[in-house]
Amino acid sequence: MKIIHSISEIQQLSRDLAQEGKRIGFVPTMGFLHEGHLSLVNVAKQHSDVVVMSIFVNPTQFGPNEDYDSYPRDAERDQKLAAERGVDYLWMPEVSQMYPKGEQTKVVVTELTRGLCGPFRPGHFMGVTTIVAKLFSALQPQIAVFGEKDYQQLQVIRRMAKDLLMPIEIIGVPTLRDEDGLAKSSRNVYLNEEERKQVLYISQAIKAVQQAVKKGEKQVQKLLSLGKDILAQAPDLQLEYLEIVDAENLQKLEVIQRPARVLIAAYVNHKRFIDNGALT
Amino acid sequence: MKIIHSISEIQQLSRDLAQEGKRIGFVPTMGFLHEGHLSLVNVAKQHSDVVVMSIFVNPTQFGPNEDYDSYPRDAERDQKLAAERGVDYLWMPEVSQMYPKGEQTKVVVTELTRGLCGPFRPGHFMGVTTIVAKLFSALQPQIAVFGEKDYQQLQVIRRMAKDLLMPIEIIGVPTLRDEDGLAKSSRNVYLNEEERKQVLYISQAIKAVQQAVKKGEKQVQKLLSLGKDILAQAPDLQLEYLEIVDAENLQKLEVIQRPARVLIAAYVNHKRFIDNGALT
Repeated sequence: MKIIHSISEIQQLSRDLAQEGKRIGFVPTMGFLHEGHLSLVNVAKQHSDVVVMSIFVNPTQFGPNEDYDSYPRDAERDQKLAAERGVDYLWMPEVSQMYPKGEQTKVVVTELTRGLCGPFRPGHFMGVTTIVAKLFSALQPQIAVFGEKDYQQLQVIRRMAKDLLMPIEIIGVPTLRDEDGLAKSSRNVYLNEEERKQVLYISQAIKAVQQAVKKGEKQVQKLLSLGKDILAQAPDLQLEYLEIVDAENLQKLEVIQRPARVLIAAYVNHKRFIDNGALT
Repeated sequence: MKIIHSISEIQQLSRDLAQEGKRIGFVPTMGFLHEGHLSLVNVAKQHSDVVVMSIFVNPTQFGPNEDYDSYPRDAERDQKLAAERGVDYLWMPEVSQMYPKGEQTKVVVTELTRGLCGPFRPGHFMGVTTIVAKLFSALQPQIAVFGEKDYQQLQVIRRMAKDLLMPIEIIGVPTLRDEDGLAKSSRNVYLNEEERKQVLYISQAIKAVQQAVKKGEKQVQKLLSLGKDILAQAPDLQLEYLEIVDAENLQKLEVIQRPARVLIAAYVNHKRFIDNGALT
């Protein structure tokens, strides 16, 4: 595995691979890799000839009171895990390279970012779409793989790539979970045992809603009540939102008649967790 | 010369040329070609192996009271002129292809679009940067050539390409002029003889400011007065702005101490004209 820092090296790699007719599979991450990230590498390998993973904790997608400074980082461990999993190139840019002096260009996706996490994290999705557009422009991959754990982000990036006519196929990969159901996340490292118990109600609420839909319940109000009842059992969990939306356009639904998604965001001890699940 | 309509064909062409190691030189236009556009083709040919010209009258960069519907169009004549000048591929997309159903992604450059034409044409530059980002993403050229006639646009696009880490060299080409000094523009077709006389004061004011700078005048207030005096001689010319700014960041100057630019926008009979010139 080769480690790349500079943009010009990534652009050159892109040109060289294009000339060789090789398909680039891209896995953008913020590092502190876990099995969820590594499962994206497996998928990228299935769809491409060369896998490039980026590790970049992007400052512009964190709010002023969020955890940019304390976001978990471990470059050495990440390099080892990426190499073991068969990543060909690990791209680790500096902030000053991704945001050149005097930079003032933003990429914005409008409707899809208005609901769910959007109002609670102003500027977050603009940070995400801007950085992903930069990563895509410099590398020009044919395939890019994202986890469904950040489901709204996945839909926003799909829309951006389509709207900007990028010749990139966006692949979403189902969330990996620990045995107790907790969605794998770099931020889980923040949790102590007691907090983890509280957070588990999130995945349990999602599972309960999914099972109710499987059994035939289509009324969103009833499904939301069911989910909220479960979340209410967690005394220290502060719900930000529980919503059931169209799986593609993320608009709220009243009745489930087409592919839908249940999404939850909640705090435990000022730490924010999100999770979601498919409803079909 | 091959004519291409579909995005997928352009994306395929881009892949094929990349695999052959050919450099793509791109000339984006809104058509109704004149010698100014064709001079861009000459420059593109010098810097690339294959020249692609696009013709697309982009609706999102026209304001509601602007001339989108009446903008001059002549596809047949454009095709002939492009072929004669040696364009290899002429890309003529439809609006529905550039703006897919449900599209909601915008590319925004902030500071550089706040002055000059920005406040007078709200949304114009967002329309420009969004469409150019789409054209660049689909074609992935190595070189893109723009006229200096739209100087603010040129600087905005340079900034966008740099900020988004696009591996594209942006080349600006000096404005071509008719013998009387009028900057070549597709919109000149709107002018009758009397109006043309009025519009000529714009290029004359620019030339006078340039000459004063050459003779040693560095005070912007004096240079602006000189320009305004000339424009005041055109009875039917309505000045929108006359400004002298830094040539790169477009910030207003008080004294000319580094590369600068004089820019004018004015109306004659409700028709808007812009022009500019270098001050060094």
